[in-house]
Amino acid sequence: MTNLFGEFFGTMVLIIFGGGVVANCLLSKSKAEGAGWLTIVTGWAMGVMLGVFSAIATGAPQADLNPAVTLAKTFLGVYAPGHAVMTMLAELAGGFAGGVVVWLAFLPHWEVTEDKGLKLAVFSTGPAIRNTFANLLCEIIATTVLITMIFAIFSKPVGNLAPGFGPYLVGMLVWALGLSLGGPTGYALNPARDLGPRIAHAILPIAGKGDSDWGYAWVPVVGPMIGAGVAVAVAKATGML
Amino acid sequence: MTNLFGEFFGTMVLIIFGGGVVANCLLSKSKAEGAGWLTIVTGWAMGVMLGVFSAIATGAPQADLNPAVTLAKTFLGVYAPGHAVMTMLAELAGGFAGGVVVWLAFLPHWEVTEDKGLKLAVFSTGPAIRNTFANLLCEIIATTVLITMIFAIFSKPVGNLAPGFGPYLVGMLVWALGLSLGGPTGYALNPARDLGPRIAHAILPIAGKGDSDWGYAWVPVVGPMIGAGVAVAVAKATGML
Amino acid sequence: MTNLFGEFFGTMVLIIFGGGVVANCLLSKSKAEGAGWLTIVTGWAMGVMLGVFSAIATGAPQADLNPAVTLAKTFLGVYAPGHAVMTMLAELAGGFAGGVVVWLAFLPHWEVTEDKGLKLAVFSTGPAIRNTFANLLCEIIATTVLITMIFAIFSKPVGNLAPGFGPYLVGMLVWALGLSLGGPTGYALNPARDLGPRIAHAILPIAGKGDSDWGYAWVPVVGPMIGAGVAVAVAKATGML
Amino acid sequence: MTNLFGEFFGTMVLIIFGGGVVANCLLSKSKAEGAGWLTIVTGWAMGVMLGVFSAIATGAPQADLNPAVTLAKTFLGVYAPGHAVMTMLAELAGGFAGGVVVWLAFLPHWEVTEDKGLKLAVFSTGPAIRNTFANLLCEIIATTVLITMIFAIFSKPVGNLAPGFGPYLVGMLVWALGLSLGGPTGYALNPARDLGPRIAHAILPIAGKGDSDWGYAWVPVVGPMIGAGVAVAVAKATGML
Repeated sequence: MTNLFGEFFGTMVLIIFGGGVVANCLLSKSKAEGAGWLTIVTGWAMGVMLGVFSAIATGAPQADLNPAVTLAKTFLGVYAPGHAVMTMLAELAGGFAGGVVVWLAFLPHWEVTEDKGLKLAVFSTGPAIRNTFANLLCEIIATTVLITMIFAIFSKPVGNLAPGFGPYLVGMLVWALGLSLGGPTGYALNPARDLGPRIAHAILPIAGKGDSDWGYAWVPVVGPMIGAGVAVAVAKATGML
Repeated sequence: MTNLFGEFFGTMVLIIFGGGVVANCLLSKSKAEGAGWLTIVTGWAMGVMLGVFSAIATGAPQADLNPAVTLAKTFLGVYAPGHAVMTMLAELAGGFAGGVVVWLAFLPHWEVTEDKGLKLAVFSTGPAIRNTFANLLCEIIATTVLITMIFAIFSKPVGNLAPGFGPYLVGMLVWALGLSLGGPTGYALNPARDLGPRIAHAILPIAGKGDSDWGYAWVPVVGPMIGAGVAVAVAKATGML
Repeated sequence: MTNLFGEFFGTMVLIIFGGGVVANCLLSKSKAEGAGWLTIVTGWAMGVMLGVFSAIATGAPQADLNPAVTLAKTFLGVYAPGHAVMTMLAELAGGFAGGVVVWLAFLPHWEVTEDKGLKLAVFSTGPAIRNTFANLLCEIIATTVLITMIFAIFSKPVGNLAPGFGPYLVGMLVWALGLSLGGPTGYALNPARDLGPRIAHAILPIAGKGDSDWGYAWVPVVGPMIGAGVAVAVAKATGML
Repeated sequence: MTNLFGEFFGTMVLIIFGGGVVANCLLSKSKAEGAGWLTIVTGWAMGVMLGVFSAIATGAPQADLNPAVTLAKTFLGVYAPGHAVMTMLAELAGGFAGGVVVWLAFLPHWEVTEDKGLKLAVFSTGPAIRNTFANLLCEIIATTVLITMIFAIFSKPVGNLAPGFGPYLVGMLVWALGLSLGGPTGYALNPARDLGPRIAHAILPIAGKGDSDWGYAWVPVVGPMIGAGVAVAVAKATGML
């Protein structure tokens, strides 16, 4: 059980920081309003790092925080299928819980923010240019890169990373992904990161909220899951695994 | 006594950098004027890191620099209550001393800065939207996250961090907090960081200063102290401790 | 063969992130549009770091990712000339492949971007002020610094870097180069980084693309190769090697 | 002799990156023009880090790169007075040489930049508000903090830093100083960093240059030297040494 709890808790932490930085930069009257893309991707990077530390500290040394990562490891035999599904649900619940915390932390800022799209953006991703094929392709590519790079960083030839340096490098990796591949779709790369908070957006009494864009919601779920499969294939073909 | 001195000295260093970066970005004619939120939170992050190094180097290996952290550790039996109060007072004095140094370093910039609110912002936090409940809640949430994450980073499952890497990661944590949760209240998270420099603001002959907003001053003291209690509860419930 | 494949793969990863961050910041409607130079150089820094991890993980512990670095090591006897040429071609192919991935990841953004120069800039460098002598000189200087600093970071007096810390420091080095010496020519520093994606630009059916500026293409190839020679001379003269 | 050469070489590297980032952000038509304060201080941070690596790699394990640091260590008995003066001159020469390299790297950008003050700013610092007492005080405070923090980071209670981590932390320290205390005077903190390139500015045939502001030149020399003395006193009084 602690394994599932750790994945829940770590994903919650990830979303507290990840949703938080978007709220900080987009919501009206926030002190970071307009701080821009570099601020946003730095917040997500640190959020993933801290989510990984949180998961490890609470009994989930795998620290996936991401059903796509869990799926990739399931292909590799790390999890039994049933345990994998439970893990994914724990991650999803963590994403939901993180969204609730962000809503509370920025409580008076929802009402003063007029743009409903900005409010949704705190919780879940949306495409810069709506094009199902291209959006899906971008999420597949970026998730493939994410998971392949995790395998690379923790590969045998690199050697045993010092305590705490692995989570730090995973944070740097997520920084890189946001910096370089985040523009077309907002780099969900993680069904729990997108769907969990999207459910929170739909349920919470957010002042002046709009719809939760359910028509797009499957893309940041399916894309990363396909990317997980591609990443395992790439990692095997390249001899990383 | 060295323990108390180290907490004093480390907190002073923290405020030299933390108050300094706000002065650098907000005061008129400073070369960093208008550099923005990312610059400010990076300065605070590095300031906490250097404050921790300073405290360790001067005999305070706990390197709390923050009465909320000291309170959390008192709940855990690290300090006797009497020693905890002395430590908190040392931290508060360090915050005051740091404010004095920032005032001196930016000496000719106070007079040329017209906005009294910007001058106060160098010393202490203020809410983006004044709402006692929401402001208190935000400080509680952010401090809970701060202290829980400290427990996570230094938890047993993560392992023994290499010398110097712990302070660095604490800096990264504070970077994350500013990036993601700093917008609603300016992320005091620390009574000594807010009240110490606020007293300095009240006492120092700062050119053209306004009032020290004492009506708000209790929020960044009480919020973090409540957050300390919540953090200990969370850390215990999640098995980090 | 794995050695060559690792250089191919690592250079591809480098360009996915490096070309990606330029696309992210320059292409119309991308969420990072206009994020600016600091964002761009941070993306390249992380891209080089991840390229190095990728090369190491896939059987190329030298992780040059750059024919100029390969040439410098050939002068030092690390590679036989024939193997060096093969390595350089593998790096060039990796640069090409990375360009293709970036094109796909940003698929709908090419058509909406009017400026043909911005589209080329995603793939290859161009001078801020077109001046063959000065542009060549800048590439020579910056590549000399790049390679000399690699020798310095991995020199004996520094000591054995912990696993993963070497690739991180190389990323920081590339951050520094972009921050400080990137402005006059876009800091190619690497024939594979410039020529590989330039070929991709020429071949790919990029919507509304312009010419590939072949008249300049030799500068970011020849300049870095000369820099490699200078760097070896500097490193030997200064006793680093 | 290698000791002196290493100090020369490391200081040259420091100025290549430090002067380079200012040129990159201030000179007309440079790709980083207008990138702002955060970019500038990040470049200086990385420049110091790489300067330290360079000095260590070329036979100067002390890696002072700064006559104020050398003076502080002379007070502590690390250097004999005569050797200290030689070291300072080597650092000064390195600062000069670094300025020459920056001039060459940005060769066509001097003519197109109209503002003579921006051209000088690439080489040496100037005050935001000209006030001899306040400027000197700011340089004293910031240099005191710089050198005290170096003692703190490398103090016994922190422990032995892993290879390469020390130079990295020194870079972070310089990042912090620029972020927080750089605004009033441009944070020279180092006579060789300011006077060396200022001499280069005076001698080099920089297109359309103005005067070298010799009236201010003594402040970033004398201030840091006083700061060195204060830092030694602080470090001794606080028990760091």
